[in-house]
Amino acid sequence: MPTLSEKILRAHAANNAFTKGKQMRLKIDQTLTQDATGTMAYLQLEAIGIKRVKTELSLSYVDHNTLQNGYENADDHKYLQSIANAYGIRFSKAGNGICHQVHLERFAKPGCTLLGSDSHTPTAGGIGALAIGAGGLDVACAMAGYPFTLTVPKIMQVVLHGKLQKGVSAKDVILTLLGMLSVKGGVGKIIEYSGDGIASLTIPERATICNMGAELGATTSIFPSDAMTKAFLESQGRGQDYVELSADDDAQYDEQIELYLDQIEPMIALPHSPDQVKAVKDRIGMKIDQVAIGSCTNSSYMDLMKTAAILKGKRVHPDVSLIISPGSRQVLQMITDSGALHTLLAAGARLLECTCGPCIGMGQSPQTDAVSLRTFNRNFYGRSGTLSAKVCLVSPETAAASAVAGVLVDPRTVSFAMPQDQTSIPIDDSMILLPDHDLSKPIIRGPNIKPLPINTTMPNHFTKQVLIKLGDHITTDHIAPAGAKVLPYRSNIEKLSEFVFQNNQKDFYLNCQKHQGGIVVAGENYGQGSSREHAALALMYLGIKAVIAKSFARIHHANLINFGILPLLFTKAEDLESIDELDELQFHDLSQLKEGQPFVVYNATKKTAYTCTHQLSAHDIAILKEGGLLNYIRSHTDA
Amino acid sequence: MPTLSEKILRAHAANNAFTKGKQMRLKIDQTLTQDATGTMAYLQLEAIGIKRVKTELSLSYVDHNTLQNGYENADDHKYLQSIANAYGIRFSKAGNGICHQVHLERFAKPGCTLLGSDSHTPTAGGIGALAIGAGGLDVACAMAGYPFTLTVPKIMQVVLHGKLQKGVSAKDVILTLLGMLSVKGGVGKIIEYSGDGIASLTIPERATICNMGAELGATTSIFPSDAMTKAFLESQGRGQDYVELSADDDAQYDEQIELYLDQIEPMIALPHSPDQVKAVKDRIGMKIDQVAIGSCTNSSYMDLMKTAAILKGKRVHPDVSLIISPGSRQVLQMITDSGALHTLLAAGARLLECTCGPCIGMGQSPQTDAVSLRTFNRNFYGRSGTLSAKVCLVSPETAAASAVAGVLVDPRTVSFAMPQDQTSIPIDDSMILLPDHDLSKPIIRGPNIKPLPINTTMPNHFTKQVLIKLGDHITTDHIAPAGAKVLPYRSNIEKLSEFVFQNNQKDFYLNCQKHQGGIVVAGENYGQGSSREHAALALMYLGIKAVIAKSFARIHHANLINFGILPLLFTKAEDLESIDELDELQFHDLSQLKEGQPFVVYNATKKTAYTCTHQLSAHDIAILKEGGLLNYIRSHTDA
Repeated sequence: MPTLSEKILRAHAANNAFTKGKQMRLKIDQTLTQDATGTMAYLQLEAIGIKRVKTELSLSYVDHNTLQNGYENADDHKYLQSIANAYGIRFSKAGNGICHQVHLERFAKPGCTLLGSDSHTPTAGGIGALAIGAGGLDVACAMAGYPFTLTVPKIMQVVLHGKLQKGVSAKDVILTLLGMLSVKGGVGKIIEYSGDGIASLTIPERATICNMGAELGATTSIFPSDAMTKAFLESQGRGQDYVELSADDDAQYDEQIELYLDQIEPMIALPHSPDQVKAVKDRIGMKIDQVAIGSCTNSSYMDLMKTAAILKGKRVHPDVSLIISPGSRQVLQMITDSGALHTLLAAGARLLECTCGPCIGMGQSPQTDAVSLRTFNRNFYGRSGTLSAKVCLVSPETAAASAVAGVLVDPRTVSFAMPQDQTSIPIDDSMILLPDHDLSKPIIRGPNIKPLPINTTMPNHFTKQVLIKLGDHITTDHIAPAGAKVLPYRSNIEKLSEFVFQNNQKDFYLNCQKHQGGIVVAGENYGQGSSREHAALALMYLGIKAVIAKSFARIHHANLINFGILPLLFTKAEDLESIDELDELQFHDLSQLKEGQPFVVYNATKKTAYTCTHQLSAHDIAILKEGGLLNYIRSHTDA
Repeated sequence: MPTLSEKILRAHAANNAFTKGKQMRLKIDQTLTQDATGTMAYLQLEAIGIKRVKTELSLSYVDHNTLQNGYENADDHKYLQSIANAYGIRFSKAGNGICHQVHLERFAKPGCTLLGSDSHTPTAGGIGALAIGAGGLDVACAMAGYPFTLTVPKIMQVVLHGKLQKGVSAKDVILTLLGMLSVKGGVGKIIEYSGDGIASLTIPERATICNMGAELGATTSIFPSDAMTKAFLESQGRGQDYVELSADDDAQYDEQIELYLDQIEPMIALPHSPDQVKAVKDRIGMKIDQVAIGSCTNSSYMDLMKTAAILKGKRVHPDVSLIISPGSRQVLQMITDSGALHTLLAAGARLLECTCGPCIGMGQSPQTDAVSLRTFNRNFYGRSGTLSAKVCLVSPETAAASAVAGVLVDPRTVSFAMPQDQTSIPIDDSMILLPDHDLSKPIIRGPNIKPLPINTTMPNHFTKQVLIKLGDHITTDHIAPAGAKVLPYRSNIEKLSEFVFQNNQKDFYLNCQKHQGGIVVAGENYGQGSSREHAALALMYLGIKAVIAKSFARIHHANLINFGILPLLFTKAEDLESIDELDELQFHDLSQLKEGQPFVVYNATKKTAYTCTHQLSAHDIAILKEGGLLNYIRSHTDA
């Protein structure tokens, strides 16, 4: 009677400890990193002090910082290449593709556990892997052989019926769910897909749906492994990786939703959140300035083949800039060979490298006040690099049809020949370097690779001022911005910390210096979005000792613990309202911080007290007291 | 008995005035701009106050600022698109290719005059056009119908004999000349190619040679228009543009060089100047970290076909990052269709957009201390974006062979099947927007489009301090840096001026503010390199009143006049040596500044005087006194 996820979780439970709602220790088969989070993860791996990774397979991808405006990115790439070789990690060179797309094609397996230092790691759920995004330190620990600590999530079943209409795609399925459930709808849950509707969904389509489960806040999303999975693996020359996997027929779920694919329509997420979802047909005619097709969400072969089918014989509207970034070198080769690339170029598309690119604000920032339609996963304020831009999320079909018209178009109203999926795939892993584990080769550390900052243990009493008061849904993009100007400093925390909260408070880092650190208070869903641990690490570097919020996003909550920052929960909304910036908060006797028990914080300025709760296990509290996970595992060989 | 250039110059001489060594006024048939210089050129065109361009053909290309890290680039593109439409200029959208490659393919004509706001405009000399790089203001004036002022250059004949060996290419010809003549070797000259050797050189090969004539300091370079030209134009569907053109048999040249193509070897320009040329065979085995193939110098179809032929069945060395940026969408389509793109990707190349990209430091900065082999035209210190990088210039053949080996390789030692040139070319100008000259459409000015700074008239007496003392060969990259961090501000002089001389003097702009402007002194060949008028305009904005140097590069000398900055020449080397920064220089009675007469500058600090010469015509002096060309033409309707 277990669900699919429960089967995988139980099979990977260290010490067989597995209780719903409690923390478990999950054995990790595979890890992945990308270059924006990877440099820090590998600095941490070095600090842990093992000689060689202990996972079945670890991959280091370069897909984020590939514009290389200055030496920093290339320095990072060389560091990653040299450390991968030394520690027994495969290294996917810049140009080989986006980590999630490549991992899906070449490495993810049904039933395996995958931990990745990127919030869209759940993409591999499309192939039946249990794939979780985490902070770099968690991934470093997994590479070092430590199980991953996870509160056993609830399981939400999404039953799909029927078949998508032509012009409607997997992206519209997940946008529909986001409209129904909001960016908090998946918090603390694994989403399991089932029903007769899944049979017609290809692996890349399933991957699109799992990918944006991250935007629901879900721990992960997963599809069964079935005939479609088998065919995909065989087309990738990996038939031996296939196992059939699904939930038992009588599996018990915590929640259930039914969706009728035939009824799903083209959807659009309006600025500035992936859950601001409307039907495309209700916004027809909205003028468009930029269209971007790509990202780990929608850059598969069929995504681009459908784009080409819609653009065939047509021209991009003169006022529109259409940019296309294929998900992987495999995809780029396939569209080159099939003639689709010719069609895309003839229509006036701009072809970018096979990287994340504009999805993370690495280039292609739209003009001032532009409307930008993107097939990506996030449209957070400012993420595109243009604060005034209105970024909307759509399917490749909607994007392509709108690029031609110059206005938002319902792709069901456009005629195009549905392309055939490719069954014979050119397999070429030559841009993935195999490690020789030759420890005599130097680790290459350019000047952008700075030593890892290490926290001190948490004092038993402390008094700090509130340095920033924030609203709901603060993303890790707010905390530690991405974009071309900041991403080069992911291995240089001192420099990176200058950008913390740059769009919320001018010179936040100077305030931190002035007040010798302090406290952050915020509303609901604090730390949603990208998995970047830098959003915790940079705060730690700036001396932030605690964050009190109404609720936390899962990965960021874990990252706060990992870096020794105390995450507490307000129990009453008015508590947050009553606090002003520069109020002095007192944290007395941290030895009384216990699992499942409230903790009282005093506001010395307002002469009041807040009874806070928390989601901390005894293990988490032990880590916090040591000043974070790295200190903890270095002092506990049994960690 | 005229040379080829003389024929074109005479045919375009306004008022038939044409005397060697004297200034002439040249009628301009075509203009081109790119987006890094174009925004300023069009702000100037607006300031001139005409309604529609008066040239036969004017093109506005977007090829420089295409990374778009922030709203600035896209704002510039929209401004350029809207102004082109209003003024009757064709607009080549981002993604359509590098201006010189596209112009060669689609627009340049034998015998026409072309003025471009880019120093590599002479590329079109490959097709027999007389193509000159100039500042944006000169191009704006040409678009407004004013002839271009030019000192009639000397003519240097380069006679080519024989045929290139396999593995040796046009790039090696021009590198050989650079090694012989230095970056000053072409100053004040037009280089005319002739001899039996030219028959075997294709138009793109001739264009490569003319392109890097800019690095010789030449006014322009030109090849005859012959059967090869005819075939090229016919392949581009432009047979009607063909005219046969060559020098008379008894033409008289000021200088002559003979080159035997059979004897030319693969050459390499070492850091940090295009004339630091050595034979590749003498540097075999130098370890390579990055290889970049592209730029207006070497990004033609055959350049990439030869690259693909060398890479076929091989893999890029694991330690090398190979990046390829095709010169135009036409080239990208052709390599896609021919299968060469498949070969390049299979070898592990990273494909970038069809833009200037890394050639101007827009991305792909190599790692710290890297050796980067590039098929580009300039390897000035810091231009790659990585100050410690060692950038070397080579042919595509040398680049490709070395990318495989990981070390410098002589491509003659590598076997490859010589590809066939394409005779049937897919012609598609759909990314070049035709203007509708609809003046009711708004000119789109995003917040990065700042008003044009206008100079005041030159005072008759002034005293200013020397704010910076520089050595020889200062490039416009030193004066107004390019690169991804600065280029977005090409239409925002206030912001741009903060970067002036940033690698020579910290906070030069603050010193200018503190001292209310001042004087620049420098050695030989001041202002070489890119045509960017921003190197004069930003100095003007900062209050620089005069530059005294041992010699000037032609375009920059003209730009200084255009913006009302007095360019004087030291007559004795010891004069420069004797000056220290912050010395106070006195310029008395500018009314005594006359064509052909010396001008004395007093050093009040050292209590000495310098007798300076200059290359200013009476016309130049009149412009200087008005505070620059824009003021001059607005007060002289007969300008």
